[in-house]
Amino acid sequence: MQKLKVYLSGEIHTDWRDQIKSGCEKQGLNVTFSSPVTDHPASDAAGDILEPESEGFWRDHKSAKVNAIRTRTLIEDCDIAVIRFGDKYKQWNAAFDAGYCAALGTPYITLHDEDIIHPLKEVDAAAHAWATTPDQVVELLQYVMG
Amino acid sequence: MQKLKVYLSGEIHTDWRDQIKSGCEKQGLNVTFSSPVTDHPASDAAGDILEPESEGFWRDHKSAKVNAIRTRTLIEDCDIAVIRFGDKYKQWNAAFDAGYCAALGTPYITLHDEDIIHPLKEVDAAAHAWATTPDQVVELLQYVMG
Amino acid sequence: MQKLKVYLSGEIHTDWRDQIKSGCEKQGLNVTFSSPVTDHPASDAAGDILEPESEGFWRDHKSAKVNAIRTRTLIEDCDIAVIRFGDKYKQWNAAFDAGYCAALGTPYITLHDEDIIHPLKEVDAAAHAWATTPDQVVELLQYVMG
Amino acid sequence: MQKLKVYLSGEIHTDWRDQIKSGCEKQGLNVTFSSPVTDHPASDAAGDILEPESEGFWRDHKSAKVNAIRTRTLIEDCDIAVIRFGDKYKQWNAAFDAGYCAALGTPYITLHDEDIIHPLKEVDAAAHAWATTPDQVVELLQYVMG
Amino acid sequence: MQKLKVYLSGEIHTDWRDQIKSGCEKQGLNVTFSSPVTDHPASDAAGDILEPESEGFWRDHKSAKVNAIRTRTLIEDCDIAVIRFGDKYKQWNAAFDAGYCAALGTPYITLHDEDIIHPLKEVDAAAHAWATTPDQVVELLQYVMG
Amino acid sequence: MQKLKVYLSGEIHTDWRDQIKSGCEKQGLNVTFSSPVTDHPASDAAGDILEPESEGFWRDHKSAKVNAIRTRTLIEDCDIAVIRFGDKYKQWNAAFDAGYCAALGTPYITLHDEDIIHPLKEVDAAAHAWATTPDQVVELLQYVMG
Amino acid sequence: MQKLKVYLSGEIHTDWRDQIKSGCEKQGLNVTFSSPVTDHPASDAAGDILEPESEGFWRDHKSAKVNAIRTRTLIEDCDIAVIRFGDKYKQWNAAFDAGYCAALGTPYITLHDEDIIHPLKEVDAAAHAWATTPDQVVELLQYVMG
Amino acid sequence: MQKLKVYLSGEIHTDWRDQIKSGCEKQGLNVTFSSPVTDHPASDAAGDILEPESEGFWRDHKSAKVNAIRTRTLIEDCDIAVIRFGDKYKQWNAAFDAGYCAALGTPYITLHDEDIIHPLKEVDAAAHAWATTPDQVVELLQYVMG
Repeated sequence: MQKLKVYLSGEIHTDWRDQIKSGCEKQGLNVTFSSPVTDHPASDAAGDILEPESEGFWRDHKSAKVNAIRTRTLIEDCDIAVIRFGDKYKQWNAAFDAGYCAALGTPYITLHDEDIIHPLKEVDAAAHAWATTPDQVVELLQYVMG
Repeated sequence: MQKLKVYLSGEIHTDWRDQIKSGCEKQGLNVTFSSPVTDHPASDAAGDILEPESEGFWRDHKSAKVNAIRTRTLIEDCDIAVIRFGDKYKQWNAAFDAGYCAALGTPYITLHDEDIIHPLKEVDAAAHAWATTPDQVVELLQYVMG
Repeated sequence: MQKLKVYLSGEIHTDWRDQIKSGCEKQGLNVTFSSPVTDHPASDAAGDILEPESEGFWRDHKSAKVNAIRTRTLIEDCDIAVIRFGDKYKQWNAAFDAGYCAALGTPYITLHDEDIIHPLKEVDAAAHAWATTPDQVVELLQYVMG
Repeated sequence: MQKLKVYLSGEIHTDWRDQIKSGCEKQGLNVTFSSPVTDHPASDAAGDILEPESEGFWRDHKSAKVNAIRTRTLIEDCDIAVIRFGDKYKQWNAAFDAGYCAALGTPYITLHDEDIIHPLKEVDAAAHAWATTPDQVVELLQYVMG
Repeated sequence: MQKLKVYLSGEIHTDWRDQIKSGCEKQGLNVTFSSPVTDHPASDAAGDILEPESEGFWRDHKSAKVNAIRTRTLIEDCDIAVIRFGDKYKQWNAAFDAGYCAALGTPYITLHDEDIIHPLKEVDAAAHAWATTPDQVVELLQYVMG
Repeated sequence: MQKLKVYLSGEIHTDWRDQIKSGCEKQGLNVTFSSPVTDHPASDAAGDILEPESEGFWRDHKSAKVNAIRTRTLIEDCDIAVIRFGDKYKQWNAAFDAGYCAALGTPYITLHDEDIIHPLKEVDAAAHAWATTPDQVVELLQYVMG
Repeated sequence: MQKLKVYLSGEIHTDWRDQIKSGCEKQGLNVTFSSPVTDHPASDAAGDILEPESEGFWRDHKSAKVNAIRTRTLIEDCDIAVIRFGDKYKQWNAAFDAGYCAALGTPYITLHDEDIIHPLKEVDAAAHAWATTPDQVVELLQYVMG
Repeated sequence: MQKLKVYLSGEIHTDWRDQIKSGCEKQGLNVTFSSPVTDHPASDAAGDILEPESEGFWRDHKSAKVNAIRTRTLIEDCDIAVIRFGDKYKQWNAAFDAGYCAALGTPYITLHDEDIIHPLKEVDAAAHAWATTPDQVVELLQYVMG
């Protein structure tokens, strides 16, 4: 496999994306990574430049739809997604992305600890692999690219 | 609109499904409802009749894949989904279903309280409506069916 | 052709829908008709039962998304659409429905007067027929159903 | 996001396309823009080289179908559309393009003044963002591309 | 197989459709047949009720688009098509229908004499069977329905 | 789940289909079953009524294409497939059907003994469940239908 | 429009392909052309390297299926097709390609003389333009590419 | 045809892939080849880096799902597949790939000896060509690329 487009969805408060990127680089893999906007305040404010000025639900709504322009385009374009669930927050957007990939038939790898296996069972059931560390994801990508 | 097939996804620990069903019945709406298996222990044990006997991840995996036969078939067949987020548990399966509907282009209504607007913003952004009570869902269906 | 599902899109201020329906009934055609909600104030208020209470853009937005649950479902289900452009208002929703049908490959018939041929040329170019009276639409449906 | 293909649909009598293009250029964004033929008389005459010679409806029809070769190909190929409604003309082709994008699942941004919010509510309901100035569109694209 | 929807495309100057229908009836097969309008003058005049009045190319164009409302709907709805090529006329519409079925993945059976095997080789290559008599088609349908 | 269409693919030399059917009947499940033609000599001779008379490869080819009219139609129409691998013959058609279902996104259950787990690992990886007895399949269907 | 992939289908006994290619080259258009194999005897013999050795129907069948590998791949990949009908032969393959394009939603231009307007009316009805000379096709492509 | 992406599926114990690759190289064909991982022990161990540690069914399951990330991506991306059946093993994965290609509409060539024509008849029926030697495949590709 000459190259691979990988979308990195989910948790934005740890450096798992960097670990996967640098791991793939060390192995010389020809992978193009993409992600949602991972700057939390910027992401929440994505719609603020647009009218009508809003608070609460509509501010979130405007921002989420702007962010979806990016995420939807990148998910539809990727070959594989890696979807990370951390130990904080609701992370419903990550599960949403998993469902989106499943419906498109795009393979995805979940990345999460053992203690959330049970609540993630539907998400894992549609996944092609479950990894617990960024290193395992790198190994998987290396194997898959042959 | 002569009839409507509505899939009721998400929380299984309160009686919101019954409220919507009886509300629609009172209004005489021609709606067919479907749901995942809502008996929690039965759902967790869905794969237990199958080999190989398993514990932990694989038991969940087997059960979740069996349940997916039902949920995938019903989601692909429905006209609209109602996706309920309660105040307990991770409920990643509900967000997964929302993403699945979004990718299929199937309209869905979210049903949740105001205090989880922010973590649900991506799920609500792709929804056609956000309701806070089962009665509102009934009113919506009544309006939509004309 | 044993039966036909026809969606009637567009103008809501004249009785063209009734003329087509009664014309088809007179001919004994087995046609099921569907429409958007044609009660203008009700349609504008479709989202008012839902939170957050809104004015202006967001009120329109909430209502339009609720209405889209109905219209999207009916358009995706119909065999043919008839799309009517009258002599008042912007009627961008009618042109939107035409574009939606075109992308789905659903055949549609436009119904409009001669004086708006030029601004409707893109909409007519993707149509299967242009009619100027409800009677012509009835004749077309009668012919098409054989 | 490394690059983006953006289709600029709608109004052809003001310089909004140039403003967006030069704004993106200033920001160094890697965006490829495409448009319908924006020379009005040329667009109306697109079919004149073909037989049979025609006037009125058929001249419009021939030209609109030739133009659709271009617009359909570009819309199906783009990542995002920006759809501009000005204060003149019927602009049904712009609303048609919006409906086409909606059915394909291609995200689009509308660009229009506040005074036409109400008649555009169905078009805006399916949009990912509503902007009122070309500068806002540039800001959106810059944000979306990260 | 409990029932089958069969579209009968092509030649309209011999009674092959009746032979297949009565043959299936004799065998008690639960088949629903559909066809284009087979009354040649009516088919050529299908667009005559519509403006603008036309001759030559545009008359044919208008009529062919009206007929396509019927044929496209029936082809997209059928389970199998039978496509008949006789010994007269160009019959490009029959070959067009074959290509349309092939792209949809709808199986079709060709029905033609041995002397046109060579010019029909591309059409036969995408067919699931080639029959030379209506009786063979009946036998095929009987076998296929089990 | 009110009813289910189940396609029974694979082995034709044991009575597993009858066991599943009678098991579901005992449980009062509203399931419609369909199958390929399971009469082996009839299936091999499916193309014999058609010209040109053939032996060897082309006889098989003609027959297989006729059988595919049936199997393709039924697979595309079913909600779930059960795919049985016995202990004899190559059974490549069963694996072919599994791949076909996987590409369509149609869930399938495999039914086979433990000693062929390894060669069937790719087929099982895309399945929603692996059963070893017809009774387990009945239990699965009963659970899935709720 | 920066570049265009154009498939040239149909008649192989005149030099219309060369005229279009050289015309586009003169205009400096960035068009990539593709075609079926236009060497008639080679095309008829495409399957001769494969077993089983065949005559008549099966030789045609084998060759047509080999040719379809090429034509199907190129048609699915092109942006536009030009489909040429000459004054000789049945040319059912050209009409088949037109139907295939229509079902895919790929725009096509027909190229034929006035005397076959009537038998080509279904093919022309689904076309985006009808040209009578290769020069007109070049002009169309030049216009479409802007 | 300027270039072609060919997926080589099936048997991994003989050098047929190398023969096709070197044959195409000799002919100067611009073909990009891809394959599953053909190192048998590595393929069986693909999931071993992931938790939970497993034996038997689940080890195969984990590995097969990891391998499917690669194979599914490559099959969905290829223009043509060549599917090889040797004289050993069950090779159900090869037949699975054939079914997957058939459902996607991706043309494939089978490569196998004469003695397994009969059990492969369903797989061959959906193929575009049957070859018995790698040299024939090279000849086919050379012809197809013109």
